[in-house]
Parts: sequence; C-alpha cells; structure tokens
Amino acid sequence: MTLTGKMLIGQHAISGNREAIRAINPATDATLEPAYLGGDGEPVAQACALAWAAFDVYRETSLEVRATFLETVAAHIEALGDELIERAVAETGLPHARIQGERGRTCGQLRTFARTVRAGEWLDARVDTAQPQRQPLPRPDLRQRHIALGPVAVFGASNFPLAFSVAGGDTASALAAGCPVIVKAHGAHPGTSELVGRAVAQAVKACGLPEGVFSLLYGSGREVGMALVTDPRIKAVGFTGSRSGGLALIHAAQARPEPIPVYAEMSSINPVYLFPAALTARGDALAQGFVASLTQGAGQFCTNPGLVIGVQGPALDRFISSAAERLHSCAAQTMLTPGIASAFTSGVVALTEHAKVAAQGLAATGPHQGQAHLFVTQAQDFLANEHLQAEVFGASSLVVACANVEEIRQVSEHLEGQLTATLQLDEDDLPDAKALLPVLERRAGRLLVNGWPTGVEVCDAMVHGGPFPATSESRSTSVGTAAIQRFLRPVCYQDFPDALLPDALRHGNPLLLRRLLDGQREA
Amino acid sequence: MTLTGKMLIGQHAISGNREAIRAINPATDATLEPAYLGGDGEPVAQACALAWAAFDVYRETSLEVRATFLETVAAHIEALGDELIERAVAETGLPHARIQGERGRTCGQLRTFARTVRAGEWLDARVDTAQPQRQPLPRPDLRQRHIALGPVAVFGASNFPLAFSVAGGDTASALAAGCPVIVKAHGAHPGTSELVGRAVAQAVKACGLPEGVFSLLYGSGREVGMALVTDPRIKAVGFTGSRSGGLALIHAAQARPEPIPVYAEMSSINPVYLFPAALTARGDALAQGFVASLTQGAGQFCTNPGLVIGVQGPALDRFISSAAERLHSCAAQTMLTPGIASAFTSGVVALTEHAKVAAQGLAATGPHQGQAHLFVTQAQDFLANEHLQAEVFGASSLVVACANVEEIRQVSEHLEGQLTATLQLDEDDLPDAKALLPVLERRAGRLLVNGWPTGVEVCDAMVHGGPFPATSESRSTSVGTAAIQRFLRPVCYQDFPDALLPDALRHGNPLLLRRLLDGQREA
Repeated sequence: MTLTGKMLIGQHAISGNREAIRAINPATDATLEPAYLGGDGEPVAQACALAWAAFDVYRETSLEVRATFLETVAAHIEALGDELIERAVAETGLPHARIQGERGRTCGQLRTFARTVRAGEWLDARVDTAQPQRQPLPRPDLRQRHIALGPVAVFGASNFPLAFSVAGGDTASALAAGCPVIVKAHGAHPGTSELVGRAVAQAVKACGLPEGVFSLLYGSGREVGMALVTDPRIKAVGFTGSRSGGLALIHAAQARPEPIPVYAEMSSINPVYLFPAALTARGDALAQGFVASLTQGAGQFCTNPGLVIGVQGPALDRFISSAAERLHSCAAQTMLTPGIASAFTSGVVALTEHAKVAAQGLAATGPHQGQAHLFVTQAQDFLANEHLQAEVFGASSLVVACANVEEIRQVSEHLEGQLTATLQLDEDDLPDAKALLPVLERRAGRLLVNGWPTGVEVCDAMVHGGPFPATSESRSTSVGTAAIQRFLRPVCYQDFPDALLPDALRHGNPLLLRRLLDGQREA
Repeated sequence: MTLTGKMLIGQHAISGNREAIRAINPATDATLEPAYLGGDGEPVAQACALAWAAFDVYRETSLEVRATFLETVAAHIEALGDELIERAVAETGLPHARIQGERGRTCGQLRTFARTVRAGEWLDARVDTAQPQRQPLPRPDLRQRHIALGPVAVFGASNFPLAFSVAGGDTASALAAGCPVIVKAHGAHPGTSELVGRAVAQAVKACGLPEGVFSLLYGSGREVGMALVTDPRIKAVGFTGSRSGGLALIHAAQARPEPIPVYAEMSSINPVYLFPAALTARGDALAQGFVASLTQGAGQFCTNPGLVIGVQGPALDRFISSAAERLHSCAAQTMLTPGIASAFTSGVVALTEHAKVAAQGLAATGPHQGQAHLFVTQAQDFLANEHLQAEVFGASSLVVACANVEEIRQVSEHLEGQLTATLQLDEDDLPDAKALLPVLERRAGRLLVNGWPTGVEVCDAMVHGGPFPATSESRSTSVGTAAIQRFLRPVCYQDFPDALLPDALRHGNPLLLRRLLDGQREA
C-alpha cells in the first residue's frame, strides 16, 4: 500500500495546506516520506459535519452490527501485515517484537469491545413498571438506557502508536459506545496512522456504515487540536500525553458554550513500596525486577516505576546497590522522538539538582537515546521539594528513603494522584501494608502486590486511571471494557408506547438483556 | 425541640461570627427566629478536617451498617413530627400537604438508597482470574470495585426544603456511596435545615459512626460556599440552583490544584410538544393538564413546562385560548422567597419585551406572590432571539408556534440541554414523534409521552439530568438510585492476597455479589 500523506474525511482522502509533518526515524535520524501537510479549520469542520450526520444512525445500529464493525476493523488492521510493523518500527524506534505485541493487543482490544457491545450490559437497561393504583400518586412506567454522547475527538499518543492511537483504546471504546470518532494523528507516527486510518475507513465501508463514523486528521495541536475540541459537534475528548497538553485541552473544553468532558491521561510516577520483610528477604530479586520494569521500552510507559519508597537501612542500601549495578550495564535506548529524548535529558538534569545520582546506565551510542538514571533522596527532602514529584518520561526513577513506616505514610499522603501503586511485601509485611492501603486507594487507580506496574491488561477489571493529575477524571478508566462508560449518558423514557421505545427497553425484552426490572435482575 | 441558630460541626453545635441569616415567612413577610450567624472559613476547615478523618472508616463500613444508617436518618426525620412540617411551611410558603408529601419522598429516598447499598450492584465488582500459562505473557489476577470519592459538599436547594436540601437526594446518594457530607444550608430555610441536620447528626451517633460523617454549615455562598468547594479535602460537590450560582462553583472547582467534579443542576425550560392529532383531538384536556403542571407549586420546579411547541393553526389557537381562560382564574401564589418572587417578576417583564402575552393569572393579593404568565411567539422569532430561551423560575411559559413539522425540528435542534422533553401525541402522531425522537434524546435526560414533566419519581430508572446547562454533567442523574454513581470511582487490585482484598472482591465471594467473573455474571 502506498502512503499518500493525506487526511481522511470519512471516505475521502484530502491534502492539508499547512506546514508539512514528516516522521523521523529516531534510531537513524532519517526523515521518512511522505510529507503529511497539516490541516486547518476547514477539514476539522468537514469531519465534524460528517460525524454529526452519522451520529444518530450509528448510535442506533444494532449490537451485532456494531460488534461486527469492531471485529472488521481488527481484521483490516491485521491484513496490513508487515507493512504496518515496519512503518511503526521506523517511526518509533521500538523493537519489532514490541510493535507486533502491540498490534495483537490493539486487535484484541477491538474484539474485546465487540464482546462487550454484544453483551449489552453497558446499556444499563432499567425498567420500573407503572403502578396506576399507587397512593397518593400513581407511578408512571419508567425505563432507562444509556446512549452515546456524540462525536468524540481522539488524540493519538506517542508511546503507543497502535494501542493508544488511531484505532487504540479511546477509539475502540468510543466506537463501541456508538460515538463517531475523529482522530488527530500524533505527528510522530503519521505513516502508521495513515495505514491504520485507512483500515478503519475500509471497515466503515465494508460494514455499510455512514462514512462520518471515522475521520483522520493531521496538523498542529494549536490549530487542528483546538478546532476539534471547540467544535460544537464534538461531545467528548480522549487524550493521552503530557500534563501541559492535557490541561490545554481541558481548559478549552471547559470554556466552550457547552462544556464537554475531556478524558486526559497525563502524568504519573507510580510509586513502588518496598516493605521491610520483602526487602530483607529478596532485595536482589526486587532490584532485578525493578530495573527490568524501569528500562522496558526505554521507560516510555505511563506506568513506569518512577518512585521507590522504603525504610532506610542496610536492606534498602543493598537494594540500591544491586539496582545500581544492574543499571550500570543497561544500554541507552532509542526514544520515541527527538523531542521526547531531549525532554528526558532535561528532566534528568533538573533532577540532578535536587537529588543524588545513585546510578546511570551506559551512555548513548546513537541519536536520541535515553541513558537510564536512578536517584536517591530522603523523605524529608522529598516532602519539602515539589520538583522531586515531577514525572520524567523515560527510564528515570527516584528512591525515597524513609526513617520509618510513619514517614512512608507521610510521603504517601503527599503524593499527587497516580495510575498505579505497587506493594512489594512478604507475609510479615501484611499489617504495615494493610495500614497503608486506604491511603493508596485514595491515591491510585490500580494497586499491585509483588508485581511491576508496567504491563496493563485489557480486561473487565482493569483500571487505567486515577486521581488528578494521573487523569482528569478519576471516575473512569481508559483501558479495559469499563472504558465504554466514558462515552455514554443515561436517558429515561416515561410512559412510552412500545412502538417508540428503543429495543433495549421494549416489553418482552427482545434483546434478552438482564435488565433491572422493578428492582430485580431479569433472568 | 428548640431551635438554636447554630451550625453542626460533627456532633458539636457552634455559632458563627458573620452576618445573621433569618428566615422570612414569604406568606406574611414576618421574620422568623432564631437568627443563624453565618460562618467564616474556620468552621468550614473544622468540618472538612472531621470529614477527612471520618472518610477512611466510613467508606469501609459494611453494606448493612451503611444501609441501617440511612434508614435511621429517615426514622429520625419522621420523629421530628409536626414541628418540621410547621417550620418548613413557615419558611417556604408551601402548603402543608406539599411539605408532608416531600417529607415522605425524602424518607422514602433514604430507604431506597438503603436498599441500593445492600444490593451492592453499585460496587460493580469484577474479577478476572490469573492465567499463569497464557502466552506470550501470563495474565495476573485482577479485581475491581468502586470506592467513595471522598467528602462531598452539598448545597441545599431553595425549592425542595426537604427532598433536595440537608438530607435530600445529593446527601442520601453521597452517604450511600460512602462519602462524608458537609451541607451548606440554604439561607431561605435555616430552621428546617437545623431540624433535619440534628436528625442526621443523631443518626450518626446512634449508629456509632465517626462524627465527621455529617456537618451542617450556615453562611454566605461567597465565603462559606467558596471555602468549601476549594478545600482540598472536599472531593465532589452537589448543587441545585441557578445557572450563575452553579457556574461559579464549577469555575472554582476547576481552578483548584486538584479539580473536582461539580454536579450542578441549573436551568431547564422543559419543552412540551403538542403533536397535531393529539392537539386536534384533545386540545382542551391538554390545556387543562398543562396549566395544572405550570402552576403547581407556583411553578417552582426545575421540570416546570416553560416551553410549548406546536404547529400553528386553529388547533393550536384553541389550545392557547383554553389555556389562557384557565390561567385567568389561577390565583397568584406565594413564592419561596422575596428574592425568587422579584426575580420571577423581572423575568416576566423581560419576556414581555420579546414575546406576546397570551394570558395572565390573577394579580397578587399578598406579599411575594407570583402571577402566572403565558406568552406566545413564532418559531422564527424564537430561533432569532436568545432571550426567549432563558429560564424564568416560576409559573411562566412560552408557546412557540411553528409553521410545520420541519420548523419544530429546527426549534428543537436550537434548544439548549434540558432535564425533560414531553410529547403529547396520538396514534397518528407516531411517525412525526419517532422522527423527532433522536433530536430529543440528544437534548434531554428524560422523555415523557402524554404526561407532564413536573413530578420526578425516585426509582431505578429515573434520570434527572441532561446536557448542559440543564446540568453540568449529563452522564449522571441527581434523582433515583443511579445517583450513587456520581460519588464513586473504580479501583483495581492486582495479584492481591486474600487477606488484603476488600470483602467485595475476596475469593469465595463473601458478600454474595453477582460479580463479573471472567466475563460472566456470578449466579
């Protein structure tokens, strides 16, 4: 398939008229063809008009039609074959195996949402039947279901060119909910975006859906991104990226005549707690697991373990020594973009002013490589210095040595909201862990025992979210099947004749849903 | 019980040191004793500190303990007997029967949430068991439940001194979710607030809960209200009131270092559609029902029918004449407060500049009475004039005469978000109604056929919410059992030993929940 450098407005490929976006292979510094001319407000308006026109039809497609569409998207992505893998590797510097795994996750995610759509629990169908004889007033017949919010703008993430980009988690969950999607491609992987975008558009056509169900735009955040978020036809936004980028979108969305929700996943340093018994019994194994998690994918995960918390003493010292030793032999790794690599270096330099360097990985041997770093500080310094809580995106982590368990608690209460918190513990640590748990539940969306936070399973129970600034909306998740709920709202139908009711709420329950019927679940 | 004029900080009654708030009986203009001295930032900080201290304990009380607490609150409110009724009547000018009915609704609402808490579906418990043999990577054990957001600030509403005030819908749903509640009493009914607040505080004590579960404050919105919304220990806000008041709270909440959700129910004009066949067949009955709904409770309902939409012609003219005739004999009614009465009069005067007066009710015969008004305008004028969409809180409504069904659609697409939309239709109107339905689903939270929007049932299927500016958060409801979801967020537990898991997620399912277990509902 030849890359065209064009945007997709529904089924139509068009060129922008703004500055060209060109991918750079961060491993070689080579510029990749073709150029993608950025759009201005015009293609945004066109895509929004098409999405709006498609909305009422698409949101009322049957569960089967919508599920089949998601499966068709997955099949079309797989049909892109090696071309997709090669292009994504070239645009990101990520290894083949990682990109292949990410393709599997992306397609698996689409199929998981297809199952979720078919099961229909997301409709949250509720029926309270009429009680005409009730005193003092009769009760009307009341029925509730959830409907799609409206067209959704999705901003592709740099660090997941497939799983959180054009047909990634936000797109899959919004399409599953019945929302048309307009993606603003991330400028770091425009070719990957075009390939996937065309696969989605082909699936739209193959399934006979209105073309406005999906569009793909290129351009600057300031122009195309802002035009998207402020278009009155856009009703929600999905974003994964920096705190500053997320906040800019949130402010724009709140300043609209009709404010809309922005689901922004922004910033997390993912504390790892090393409890005393575990640290004493298996400090070396913990150091090994920690360094592997820290350096995986050049540390470019939202769930990267950027903070390690333990009680000071010989066991923690041994952990630091062991981690340092391992880190010393870690090769520098190519980062996703020149900008991300230089931001990482700046972040490490800034941290050097506030904390002690415990270890560095091997120095860079090629362009845009990140050299892993481990820092240490004392709890009182951490509590007194906000700089030490700033996320450094990449393989950098800070060990906070606490005087005792009480100081661990103080440090924990001081933390901003997090995506994850990890507890390394043995049997003897259970009382301390149990005492800390309420604090961590308040601070993070996912708590792990004796694992590492990198690796986010796509399943029903996953929560990839958390209190601000981890995300802008702690009441939801961006990974896992519950993500569909972000793009839905309830509507109640009172005393509706059967002919006007949606299928989910009809008498006789034609969709065979387990509705909440007069307070009881239907069988 | 003697009213004290004091705030409740947990179990402690304290006096404020700011300007005195005194209730006025709007029917007599008499000032009611005692004076309630408003608080400053100090009692706010005290209440927040207590609420924060109570939070981790309260949110982990058993389902049974929490449900019993809600039922105990209801019993203590009922035990207040006639004193509560008399005081609420004196402070609001509402009739005895209305206040008695509202007490029934308030206590029924608390008991309904007790049932919801016990059923445990709100926990949304999900379990994905480990798959250690899975390729290429094993799957960990992942479990999700919902937990309470944190202490909630509730702003009492003027128009429901019981059902949406101190122990009203927001308080009941937040307490059900496991959130401590701090209520800022509405200045219009401080005595009613004190009585109910003491009933809640007694229930806290009787149930052996931490005192910080509930506090009650008096004071100005600017000082006490803002201090509450900006306190870092407050994690969500419930508000029912004016658009300007709601927006001020929303802006303050968004400007916090950690932004928090504000569930504000603000402004709705609740369009009623008179479809041609229904209008022709039963215009007079429709006029009767409409005027009854319009003037009920002096029109002081969020769901008051402030807009009537029909196709111009003899049938619509007859409807207007019939409604006008009925309105002419409607007595002016005492409104809730002098401020609400004068705002109503101003709103009516403003509307008179933009639309034709079709009818007025009888003139006021006492202080602070509202004279019912009916206006008419043409669709093109409505589309061109934003003033005609402003809510006039009270018994005022505007008939919009449309040239045809297409103009009805245009008017509908032009409407801001609404709490309700009502369709008056007969069999022959079904095709037109069906065609309009998608527009109305996008515009309103509740759709009614052949009823009237006033009257909001507390049940599972109710949606009292809708797109902005009806509410600030269309994805939720403030009435009905689904309201509990506003105050919850999901937390995921990965590879947790049973000893650290919350009961809802333990192996063996000790709470007997119907959890989503590996994609299937447990029996």
